[in-house]
Amino acid sequence: MAVKITWLIWITILVSCELYVEADITYISARIPLQGQRWPPGSPWPLPLQWRHSPLLLTINPSNFPMVTDLESCDVIDKALHRYRGLLFQNPNVTEDKNLPVLPKLRVHISSRVCGLYPKQDTDEQYELDIHSENGVTVTAREVWGALRGLETFSQLVYTSNNVEAMSYNKLNVFHWHIVDDQSFPYVSKKFPELSNKGAYSPHHVYTQADVAKVIEFARLRGIRVIPEFDTPGHTQSWGKAYPELLTPCWVDNQPFRDLYGLEGHARSENMDPTKNQTFEFMRDFFSEIIEVFKDEYIDLGMDEAHYYCWQSSPNISQFMADRGYEPDEYYKLEEYYDTKVINIVRSLGAKVFIYQDPIEHGAKVDKNTIVRVWKGKGQWQDYAYTITDLGYNVTITSCYYLNYISYGEDWRKYYLCDPQQFNGTQKQKDRILGGEASIWTEYVDETNLLSRLWPRGSAVAERLWSDADVNDTDSAAFRLDEHRCRMRRRGIPAQPVLPGNCGDLDLKPVADVIMTTPCKTSSAKTSTTSVCVWLIGFLMYAVF
Amino acid sequence: MAVKITWLIWITILVSCELYVEADITYISARIPLQGQRWPPGSPWPLPLQWRHSPLLLTINPSNFPMVTDLESCDVIDKALHRYRGLLFQNPNVTEDKNLPVLPKLRVHISSRVCGLYPKQDTDEQYELDIHSENGVTVTAREVWGALRGLETFSQLVYTSNNVEAMSYNKLNVFHWHIVDDQSFPYVSKKFPELSNKGAYSPHHVYTQADVAKVIEFARLRGIRVIPEFDTPGHTQSWGKAYPELLTPCWVDNQPFRDLYGLEGHARSENMDPTKNQTFEFMRDFFSEIIEVFKDEYIDLGMDEAHYYCWQSSPNISQFMADRGYEPDEYYKLEEYYDTKVINIVRSLGAKVFIYQDPIEHGAKVDKNTIVRVWKGKGQWQDYAYTITDLGYNVTITSCYYLNYISYGEDWRKYYLCDPQQFNGTQKQKDRILGGEASIWTEYVDETNLLSRLWPRGSAVAERLWSDADVNDTDSAAFRLDEHRCRMRRRGIPAQPVLPGNCGDLDLKPVADVIMTTPCKTSSAKTSTTSVCVWLIGFLMYAVF
Repeated sequence: MAVKITWLIWITILVSCELYVEADITYISARIPLQGQRWPPGSPWPLPLQWRHSPLLLTINPSNFPMVTDLESCDVIDKALHRYRGLLFQNPNVTEDKNLPVLPKLRVHISSRVCGLYPKQDTDEQYELDIHSENGVTVTAREVWGALRGLETFSQLVYTSNNVEAMSYNKLNVFHWHIVDDQSFPYVSKKFPELSNKGAYSPHHVYTQADVAKVIEFARLRGIRVIPEFDTPGHTQSWGKAYPELLTPCWVDNQPFRDLYGLEGHARSENMDPTKNQTFEFMRDFFSEIIEVFKDEYIDLGMDEAHYYCWQSSPNISQFMADRGYEPDEYYKLEEYYDTKVINIVRSLGAKVFIYQDPIEHGAKVDKNTIVRVWKGKGQWQDYAYTITDLGYNVTITSCYYLNYISYGEDWRKYYLCDPQQFNGTQKQKDRILGGEASIWTEYVDETNLLSRLWPRGSAVAERLWSDADVNDTDSAAFRLDEHRCRMRRRGIPAQPVLPGNCGDLDLKPVADVIMTTPCKTSSAKTSTTSVCVWLIGFLMYAVF
Repeated sequence: MAVKITWLIWITILVSCELYVEADITYISARIPLQGQRWPPGSPWPLPLQWRHSPLLLTINPSNFPMVTDLESCDVIDKALHRYRGLLFQNPNVTEDKNLPVLPKLRVHISSRVCGLYPKQDTDEQYELDIHSENGVTVTAREVWGALRGLETFSQLVYTSNNVEAMSYNKLNVFHWHIVDDQSFPYVSKKFPELSNKGAYSPHHVYTQADVAKVIEFARLRGIRVIPEFDTPGHTQSWGKAYPELLTPCWVDNQPFRDLYGLEGHARSENMDPTKNQTFEFMRDFFSEIIEVFKDEYIDLGMDEAHYYCWQSSPNISQFMADRGYEPDEYYKLEEYYDTKVINIVRSLGAKVFIYQDPIEHGAKVDKNTIVRVWKGKGQWQDYAYTITDLGYNVTITSCYYLNYISYGEDWRKYYLCDPQQFNGTQKQKDRILGGEASIWTEYVDETNLLSRLWPRGSAVAERLWSDADVNDTDSAAFRLDEHRCRMRRRGIPAQPVLPGNCGDLDLKPVADVIMTTPCKTSSAKTSTTSVCVWLIGFLMYAVF
């Protein structure tokens, strides 16, 4: 999406509630004194690119605060105004502060006059938020998606002296749904229902068509794209439960031997069989459904970790490679052959494509419109970013944003400081970095710890991707991030502490009151992620900038 | 408590429920194949010292399963029987399995014929659990506290094919309540209410006398001792909010200067003032209340990290030391002077005493009946254990059980493998190791992540302390521990995953259904811990063996 130049005059707006005491955050120096700048209440996260903080304090009268737009009959804006009114005034006891000037209204102005159906790769998310004590609040944006971001920022400036429960947004704009893997195939296909019947953990651990539609609609209304990943040719054990003929059997002692994966581990897993036309015919049928079901213009084809072990064991594969004139050890050419065919199938069906870095790293050449995800390297992802952008591909970075790698203390700082454009490349190469992705893989994560592990550590990634590169003082950001995590808790997300301290009165509420209650079964998307479902295998959230 | 020689004939008991599918745990090889022995359903945690697994499968008829005792009018047993009936048959749809022999009844036999009021240091927690298809279940124990452990084990052998919600027990038998610290003084003292009025995070972030009594009663009925810690002479900043005269002012530039802590950090915090008689008079008054309120025979006096910085800055302290004939750098003697006086006061009031290792390490000599907690050294705690037991003190170990140090993956294994008696000492020295303590310090923990961080990592410590030293195969324990964590989830504790996989049908329930709903305000103890209260500063759970 386009670079978000955001202009904000930052005025704290106080709504008071006489029934409750102040919900200020208390910071505690537990072991060492806290460094950094304290932020006033109502500090936004992520920080807008341009902003000015006014010392003026204003208030709102909840029973007289029109929120209007000049764009008629646009569900995205209408529902957003309804939602944010709920966020602002959820507690029926809030009233205006009698000692402050009252903001008369909020107006959303969309200069393009277009409602917009789905957010896209080139969506313009710029907005301007102007707060004036007499004219009221004006959110101006070219597209409706920018207005959503502006409304979120406005809602963060409104500081209420008691708790408001609702959901939270971090302005992450893509939900990358890693929806199948070796372990399970929970997606209920219309054309191939046996895939989940036999490949899911259980008949109950599935995402139905209705579930998927709900996630997409929930996300759409919040300006979040849903990009599904169907990973091949590796990570396909679950596909083989229903369709074993799709996979290349592993050979051991001159015998084809299935399911070596369970005995020998990940590196010996089976891959799709590239020697059969039926494999590619299946893929064409399958992806024509996927492109129709998931509305985004992009599909993620995975293509990571296609380990060669089973291919190497197969006499059939050796014959196929010899027939095509590959040298006996040129498995990367076989990988390239499979990957290129599947990418071309999906492109011919009208979709654009994401893949992981693996095939490119092995020397394969694929369509230059393919977006490549750099996921390896942790601290050394920069070499990969250099090489792959140098080859002309557009890239997203996730290597330094693995939220599942938890550690003691303030480990959000390392995510915050990882700038995806900070590597030794030309400006042209850096421009090929489209964004970053916060990913969580759920080997050791389920609904018991998913949300507290995601937030606010994922919020650190959000600010790195939305804010200017020189907004990099983690000491100061810590206080605003902690306010943001208390804000998320008020809105129903059990985000874990950033600093020693407490969220004031919020601590007096039982967890069950502030936690989300959507059952896993319906798996609606929240906060640019799905709800907490343990059969979820992993997902990545990103901001494309 | 006495060594727990436990004899168990381990028979899995199946209760079925036709309305639900099986809630088997599914294990997933996410990256590498799983090693170790799989355990059958109904495997107990922690593992009893002696047990035999019978292949026999039995069942229970929920509407005809008398649970009786021959010890009349004992609330501990009566309430436990009531509680465990609830745990066994919480779901109204469970029925007996028609194909299996039916267990007729359960009988609890207490050989001492004594009910017991509070569990104590020398409590005998041995039990024998005998399961016979005709005679039924017999739990035999000398004391009622042993019977509680036996009932818990029995409840774990009963495997229900659907979910039962309730609370869980890990047989940890002491709740060490680190109830005050530098940051906050939440305990509402009867004699000195200003301590919490001025020293707590807020007037709402407190433990009232009623709260404390509730915790103690809740714990007592479950055979858990509650030992409070009131830490002096360091870590006392919060005491100074109401009673600044208790603390030695820090001097800077020839001026007494308070609250250096906030500016200069932990190492420069103030200590209690040992030069004034009023300090010790206050302590006598205060601890006479504490001993009355907390029923246990032991009080924890802390005495860790009494950094000398402020004492060193004070002309008054220098004069006092000179008057007593100490060399100018002999602050450890001043520490010994304070510590000895407070220990003797508390002992003269009738209580026994725990302290941290610090004074002993500095060379102080204190009463030999004092139990010393080794908390330093992480991987090198063995040297401290050797030295302090060699000096003749009894010791508990917590160094290798810091649950707040979270890391990615299966970090419970390191807790599991830390045997507190495994150091180069004589048998006499090893006998002085009384137990271990799992501790969680809450710099980065609150209700959002406390329970998932505590469990089942705390369960790993429980098994190390209850089971034989040569039960140390973590690969095999992993499966039983994962069953235990699913069991805890069924009982309402959001314990995090041990292995990649899922808890079957349980995953289909929203978190809010399985999470505890006790509001923090009432802070009742659960699972040998308190409920999730963010103003809790830290606590340790232990098993004394």
